[in-house]
Amino acid sequence: MNKILFPQVEGLLHGGDYNPEQWLDRPDILEKDIQYMKEAGINTVTMGVFSWAAHEPTEGNINFDWLANIMDKLYENGIYTVLATPTGARPAWLDEKYPSAMRCDERGIRNHHGVRHNHCMQSPEFRDKVRIMDTALAEKFANHPGLLMWHISNELSGYCYCDTCRKKFQEWLADRYDHDINKLNKAWWTTFWSHTFNSFDQIDPPYANGENCVLGLNLDWKRFTTWSATDFMRFEIDTLRAAGAKEPTTTNFMEMFYDYDYWYMSQFIDVISWDNYPENHNNWQSDADHLLERSFNHALFRSLKPNQPFMMMESAPGLVNWRPYNKYRRPGMHRLISMQAIATGSDTVQYFQIRKSRGSSEQWHGAVIDHIGTNDTRIFKEVAALGADLKKISEIKGSVSNNKVAIVFDWDNRWAIDDAWALSNETKKFDETCMSIYNEFMHFGIEPDIVSSDSDWSKYNIICAPMLYVLHDGIGQKITDFVNNGGEFMATYFTGYVNKDLLANLGGFPGDGLDKVFGLRTEEIDTLYPEDQVSIKIHDKANRSYHSVAVHDYQEMLRDVSADILARYENDYLEGKPAITCNKYGKGHAYYVACRTNQHDIEFIYREMLTHADIAFTKLPDGIEKHSRFSDNARYDFYLNCTTEDKDIADISGLDILSGEDIDGTLTLGKYQIAVIKIS
Amino acid sequence: MNKILFPQVEGLLHGGDYNPEQWLDRPDILEKDIQYMKEAGINTVTMGVFSWAAHEPTEGNINFDWLANIMDKLYENGIYTVLATPTGARPAWLDEKYPSAMRCDERGIRNHHGVRHNHCMQSPEFRDKVRIMDTALAEKFANHPGLLMWHISNELSGYCYCDTCRKKFQEWLADRYDHDINKLNKAWWTTFWSHTFNSFDQIDPPYANGENCVLGLNLDWKRFTTWSATDFMRFEIDTLRAAGAKEPTTTNFMEMFYDYDYWYMSQFIDVISWDNYPENHNNWQSDADHLLERSFNHALFRSLKPNQPFMMMESAPGLVNWRPYNKYRRPGMHRLISMQAIATGSDTVQYFQIRKSRGSSEQWHGAVIDHIGTNDTRIFKEVAALGADLKKISEIKGSVSNNKVAIVFDWDNRWAIDDAWALSNETKKFDETCMSIYNEFMHFGIEPDIVSSDSDWSKYNIICAPMLYVLHDGIGQKITDFVNNGGEFMATYFTGYVNKDLLANLGGFPGDGLDKVFGLRTEEIDTLYPEDQVSIKIHDKANRSYHSVAVHDYQEMLRDVSADILARYENDYLEGKPAITCNKYGKGHAYYVACRTNQHDIEFIYREMLTHADIAFTKLPDGIEKHSRFSDNARYDFYLNCTTEDKDIADISGLDILSGEDIDGTLTLGKYQIAVIKIS
Amino acid sequence: MNKILFPQVEGLLHGGDYNPEQWLDRPDILEKDIQYMKEAGINTVTMGVFSWAAHEPTEGNINFDWLANIMDKLYENGIYTVLATPTGARPAWLDEKYPSAMRCDERGIRNHHGVRHNHCMQSPEFRDKVRIMDTALAEKFANHPGLLMWHISNELSGYCYCDTCRKKFQEWLADRYDHDINKLNKAWWTTFWSHTFNSFDQIDPPYANGENCVLGLNLDWKRFTTWSATDFMRFEIDTLRAAGAKEPTTTNFMEMFYDYDYWYMSQFIDVISWDNYPENHNNWQSDADHLLERSFNHALFRSLKPNQPFMMMESAPGLVNWRPYNKYRRPGMHRLISMQAIATGSDTVQYFQIRKSRGSSEQWHGAVIDHIGTNDTRIFKEVAALGADLKKISEIKGSVSNNKVAIVFDWDNRWAIDDAWALSNETKKFDETCMSIYNEFMHFGIEPDIVSSDSDWSKYNIICAPMLYVLHDGIGQKITDFVNNGGEFMATYFTGYVNKDLLANLGGFPGDGLDKVFGLRTEEIDTLYPEDQVSIKIHDKANRSYHSVAVHDYQEMLRDVSADILARYENDYLEGKPAITCNKYGKGHAYYVACRTNQHDIEFIYREMLTHADIAFTKLPDGIEKHSRFSDNARYDFYLNCTTEDKDIADISGLDILSGEDIDGTLTLGKYQIAVIKIS
Repeated sequence: MNKILFPQVEGLLHGGDYNPEQWLDRPDILEKDIQYMKEAGINTVTMGVFSWAAHEPTEGNINFDWLANIMDKLYENGIYTVLATPTGARPAWLDEKYPSAMRCDERGIRNHHGVRHNHCMQSPEFRDKVRIMDTALAEKFANHPGLLMWHISNELSGYCYCDTCRKKFQEWLADRYDHDINKLNKAWWTTFWSHTFNSFDQIDPPYANGENCVLGLNLDWKRFTTWSATDFMRFEIDTLRAAGAKEPTTTNFMEMFYDYDYWYMSQFIDVISWDNYPENHNNWQSDADHLLERSFNHALFRSLKPNQPFMMMESAPGLVNWRPYNKYRRPGMHRLISMQAIATGSDTVQYFQIRKSRGSSEQWHGAVIDHIGTNDTRIFKEVAALGADLKKISEIKGSVSNNKVAIVFDWDNRWAIDDAWALSNETKKFDETCMSIYNEFMHFGIEPDIVSSDSDWSKYNIICAPMLYVLHDGIGQKITDFVNNGGEFMATYFTGYVNKDLLANLGGFPGDGLDKVFGLRTEEIDTLYPEDQVSIKIHDKANRSYHSVAVHDYQEMLRDVSADILARYENDYLEGKPAITCNKYGKGHAYYVACRTNQHDIEFIYREMLTHADIAFTKLPDGIEKHSRFSDNARYDFYLNCTTEDKDIADISGLDILSGEDIDGTLTLGKYQIAVIKIS
Repeated sequence: MNKILFPQVEGLLHGGDYNPEQWLDRPDILEKDIQYMKEAGINTVTMGVFSWAAHEPTEGNINFDWLANIMDKLYENGIYTVLATPTGARPAWLDEKYPSAMRCDERGIRNHHGVRHNHCMQSPEFRDKVRIMDTALAEKFANHPGLLMWHISNELSGYCYCDTCRKKFQEWLADRYDHDINKLNKAWWTTFWSHTFNSFDQIDPPYANGENCVLGLNLDWKRFTTWSATDFMRFEIDTLRAAGAKEPTTTNFMEMFYDYDYWYMSQFIDVISWDNYPENHNNWQSDADHLLERSFNHALFRSLKPNQPFMMMESAPGLVNWRPYNKYRRPGMHRLISMQAIATGSDTVQYFQIRKSRGSSEQWHGAVIDHIGTNDTRIFKEVAALGADLKKISEIKGSVSNNKVAIVFDWDNRWAIDDAWALSNETKKFDETCMSIYNEFMHFGIEPDIVSSDSDWSKYNIICAPMLYVLHDGIGQKITDFVNNGGEFMATYFTGYVNKDLLANLGGFPGDGLDKVFGLRTEEIDTLYPEDQVSIKIHDKANRSYHSVAVHDYQEMLRDVSADILARYENDYLEGKPAITCNKYGKGHAYYVACRTNQHDIEFIYREMLTHADIAFTKLPDGIEKHSRFSDNARYDFYLNCTTEDKDIADISGLDILSGEDIDGTLTLGKYQIAVIKIS
Repeated sequence: MNKILFPQVEGLLHGGDYNPEQWLDRPDILEKDIQYMKEAGINTVTMGVFSWAAHEPTEGNINFDWLANIMDKLYENGIYTVLATPTGARPAWLDEKYPSAMRCDERGIRNHHGVRHNHCMQSPEFRDKVRIMDTALAEKFANHPGLLMWHISNELSGYCYCDTCRKKFQEWLADRYDHDINKLNKAWWTTFWSHTFNSFDQIDPPYANGENCVLGLNLDWKRFTTWSATDFMRFEIDTLRAAGAKEPTTTNFMEMFYDYDYWYMSQFIDVISWDNYPENHNNWQSDADHLLERSFNHALFRSLKPNQPFMMMESAPGLVNWRPYNKYRRPGMHRLISMQAIATGSDTVQYFQIRKSRGSSEQWHGAVIDHIGTNDTRIFKEVAALGADLKKISEIKGSVSNNKVAIVFDWDNRWAIDDAWALSNETKKFDETCMSIYNEFMHFGIEPDIVSSDSDWSKYNIICAPMLYVLHDGIGQKITDFVNNGGEFMATYFTGYVNKDLLANLGGFPGDGLDKVFGLRTEEIDTLYPEDQVSIKIHDKANRSYHSVAVHDYQEMLRDVSADILARYENDYLEGKPAITCNKYGKGHAYYVACRTNQHDIEFIYREMLTHADIAFTKLPDGIEKHSRFSDNARYDFYLNCTTEDKDIADISGLDILSGEDIDGTLTLGKYQIAVIKIS
């Protein structure tokens, strides 16, 4: 199953963003950087991310000599380069001469020059300049032996409401609705509030001071801006390719990113990478809970291209400097956070950045080499120790995951739920709900993948689709088939209310035929205040007893229930009505959880599904994460102690390739410790 | 005393907004709608509220055939129509061609097309289009036998800061100040901070980024915008009338509405209607307390035209979808909320809306017919049951109230208090203070009316005017006469500080001669922090004892007190000074409450005033509301149990026309139950 | 040491803002004002602050007759005038004709006319009008025997982002960076994020929707706007002088003012004055703690010109009207607050204002004469009593302070800390840290001065420079010399991180050679959440014991420590490492406090420093403030009881010139009482 991303590099990638253009007048520092990188086991750097002004100080005067020199020198020292296109920030001269390169805000007003991003993805003048720059870059560096891959722009994000984007949006809509404005009117239900459009060119973006109440328009704007950013990214890739670049491409994604649909974007790049910035040792959750959030993100990015490793493109040595509280990673946390990335499927540990910038807004962001300039800082030493660790486990390079459980996570659905005038905006919590389901499986030692409703589900035995409010075309049938063929499927309140255009499914929910799969219809979804005290009674068949579980936020009133009833409401106006059901359908089971509870309180459903699906599980000690990677010849089980206490894990047998110890029986892990058990 | 609003309709009105233009391609649904309406006892619908784009899909192509067909069909089925002018929302083509129709925001920047309202009430181009539309509507539908009344626009609200409005404001000011800029300068005290104007055309609206500290300007802007919205409404009415419309007019008002002065607006319409959207079962108050807020609103809208019934034009079957938390009405609450409207003087129970819209922003707002499309939902059944109840009590139609107590509630005063740089913006709470006085009378089974300081007070024996900061011209004398002639009058801290121009009354407060009526002057008004612990000692003459009562937010230092002292401060720097006084003046009494307390803690004042005024009262059980309506031949006492517990009400005798039972002695009402006792 | 500000006035100044142009049509009121002023011992008024529209009702028609008449009349009655230039607000005609006089907001959008200030300090058209006005004023009133001084504009503040200011900013930058754009690029480290500029005319102000992440640009913008406001102030002064004015000048400063660097501004005026608006009896601190904040401010303003008295130009009789809660000063507080100003070095007690304005936004702001118009109000009587008190102590006039302790407080440093992407924006608290150090000395009866890092330090024995993040050029050496020569110096975490351009000091912190003075370097600064529980263990040498002290917000990891270790961390990841150190260096001591604690918990450092410096101290009773003023022949020790309880102060001997009593032994002060002990 191995898929090696970069055969030319020995072992896993270790490195990060490097901005030597800030130090060109200090050759002593540049020399020391290489020495320190080698001491820290760093074998890759990312360069050029914000180098446009260095590459092209004035319009047309492009010169890459400084970069070529450094790239050569690094390569001579065994350090490879990820090379970025510099479009994440624009030089002052560009905005001065081509104001269309700057974005317009949500009222349609043009920004001034500044900050990063802030560029219109559709500006023709900006694209001209990008084409010239990217062509020159590729012509200069493609096929350089030290070049690993192309890093397209940086953390693509945001929206532009300029006239160019407005017209592109209209064209995009015309394409989507077959150039038939009545199709659009029907899809957006514009008759409501007299919002009917006569032609596509009447349609504006959802300006803050304009039309922002037509939910279909809002959702299509999100889809369009995903398209637009992807279009820009593809334009850059095509430009590089046209100029001879053959190396793989990536763009660095971001945690729980909201602006664009990564399912769409990820199709057009070769390798998934993301920037992982934990908020360690915070004041609202335990280390272990925080690490589980990281883990969910890793799973999401891994699942975008499940058959190959991903890259952790950025992470912070020590701390970041833009959080509400900027706390240092305690000793051992750097190793744990970094190893978690490897455990979940990354083949890299990369940082922002190698050397701290002396000035400007990120001068206090953690780096491998600090302003003090020595190689004896705590952070440097932890980075160097990690470099040594990575070498010990380099055989896992290229190995991948093989999970049987998946959670459905659609961007459309996130956006639509958040934009819906329904429920409570305080407690919609779609993301948190997906994460809590992920966590519940993790407690059983089972890591789920993340899928979209449109993904290939064929490898999964269990699928959970919480709050699947929006049903894309064909998803009703797809779920029906999945269950009918023996799958275990869990749905919740707020499922199947609308179609892809956000039109309510007539005839009761869940729509698109799903009432038959679940054996029920829902008539009301009631929103609770945080203070409301409501509970359900769960029938514990094993113990022939009942126990009560608190309900939060939402409770649906079901009707026409032919499914088995696993729990009933026990108070308020729904008293006695079904709250959790399971419908045997074909060879599988369709669970319906009509109200929101703590996932842990309905753990029995997870046990049932895993048992039905014949997936072995055991309850892990609190705070232990387990992940597995599979190579052609072996399985590697990673055990991470995400707590500060010693933990015993029973029934472990195999070689810990990190410590070199053979484990047979109980594995004991100290504070923040990790074991990588190889099972051949 | 009966005043029948719509003689052609049998019984009370039951119905609501109906938007069939959303379903013109589904004749099966339109047919089922009529069938269901009849099952639910619905005899009226409101149509056309947002139908401009349906009426006139492109400029000049007006066609009402769809509406005429449906209106005819409804009429054939015994269902009448309230017909709206469609100016609550504009079609896209109108804004595209006539941008002046769109509002400018508080910085003077034009909005983009979209949302609802958002129209400049003074735009000549917009008015041209409105004139054409309303003329055509009236020409087509005036005198239709199914047409009950004209519904002008929808929930008129908001401000426009465009140049047209700026010029209109200047003209309006010139009229108000006799075209003498010095009069305006004097009224606004512009010498302060050198704000003097040389001419009316120098004056801007109070832009957010302009002149917003001249309090007189701010208040006149509020008065102007009330005038402007009313002017627009009158323009629509005049247009309809000119085209032959003879039916009565209304516009739907809103709860505790702040933007415009309804005392002014209501003069120009025939019938008062309002949209009642309770926030039931919430997390900050009991059902009963929440219903009292509804009750206060009903009283306000009833009092705008006290000699005839009003209409509850909109209310939500089940729930709304735009609250922070959108919770369903529990079983029985729909009946209680609806009957409360009738009890307080409404002759209608109307909903938004009959059938849920399939898409857009209100697709999850409650409706009589849900997306499931059946007539067996809980909500449908509660609506239908209410329809049957309304028939049982139809004889109360046209009956009116006859109250002896009133509370003064001026929009000018609300605005001026909120805009005053004084006290604490956190705790001004004028509205809440009025409501708490209302509630205190309600606990004694006495419902107050709401009046303005300029209303006819001749029918009242008791008037409470809390925080009457602004004294309009002549109000000092009016209060003097009221008390002198035997009235009971209660004032509080912050009374009579300024005249109608917001200039401080020189010589001490309360000004305009009121110091004589109350027998005191006030020298300081002190603002307390929530944590401050201050109290007064009340002399309980009956029991020859004293008790302490907590003071919150405000305490005045009185001087020159010749009135009787009913309570004194007992700590802080005002210790020993008078806190509550009563001045016998002529044949009446003038109470002055110099500090803010819980109204319940000064209940003795209410008892005294009621006793003096010879109004019988008894303390009702907690959570019971009593309202009375009077017809030519009978009185109808409504008793509402606003709690979930059984309640006994003693000494009731008469026929409960809702249950058909004869009551003689104790009336027992279960959870949310209602009785309508007829006393002939 | 005496320095008499106004020899022509007998005794201390007592008075305040007086706006008779609001009452020109009420000669009876103007007459009564003078009578009441004399009753209250008022000998000065400030006029003309907002009189532009009165002076020049239409362009070019300047007439000062009303003012001259009143000024003459006042002078005849022994009342002097502080005369303001009226540029704090502009008449409507000016903005109408010269829109460039109005500011542009932080997005570059021009404001509308209105409010106060709101003027572009660089607008040539505005300056033309100012020149004409100020010239006329000086020509008319210079050398008037009743004229005490010139009051330039009013509470100068704020920013303008117009094109004129943009160009001035570019010119200012070109001057600062020797017309070499590369110097600027280097100073601002623009290579980061590709922010390099090609020329000065590419640089914008830090627009909210533009470049606001380049920290050097942000800081230089603050420096520029300080320059720009000062430039405007100097333009006004120069104009007055050119027209013959010889009287001293001031401008009224504000509490803890943030926008401009007062160290810079104060060079160009003759006398320091400030507006003191306490928030008495509030809900977050005791009276005594609140008064200490006042005291800190007085110390700051005194220290701007340490060799002469300052003026308390404004304060509120009774209350203000623009706080969140507007509470009255309790009896006695007016005297205490006023006497505190005198105690700390003011030779004036001045109010805003003499008579309340009848209308507009400050009609409820306290004044000597209230709307009731009598001289028997509580507030009037307290003001008059204070007038009498001031006469009793008039001999202290002209006396000055003579302190040996100073706290470093740089505007650059405040701005840079707040703008730094580091630590936590919730807990940076630079101002609070300076104040808490001030308070700790005050508890020992020692009042510190406030200095800038660039001030003359020669008179001080102890200097505390908390969080001196930014080191101006030469400050490393200056501190070195100070300690070497026997000074006691205290620094804390976050010291010496950057140079004046905000570039990190390479080689470890504190930079610029200070590692040698303190005998340590710091490697990490860790930010704690409020919930984090961390402590240090302090070695109490005297008692040979240890005690623990809580750490909040920040803790640094020190290294290379050669200093004496006075405390060590006792938990978390820094356990055992040094937390507080003292380095004997030359003849002095350099203390380093590497973590944030309550200052009171490290009181031993203060004792040590005072002992080393040979400054006598005793612990005062809680809530007692002591201040000293020195004349040529005597010392005056002010003792203020800032609590509501009686307090005994031991070992006092001298004449209390306020009470006339001779004290020898224990001084007992009742609630809010004051003694002024003269020691010859």
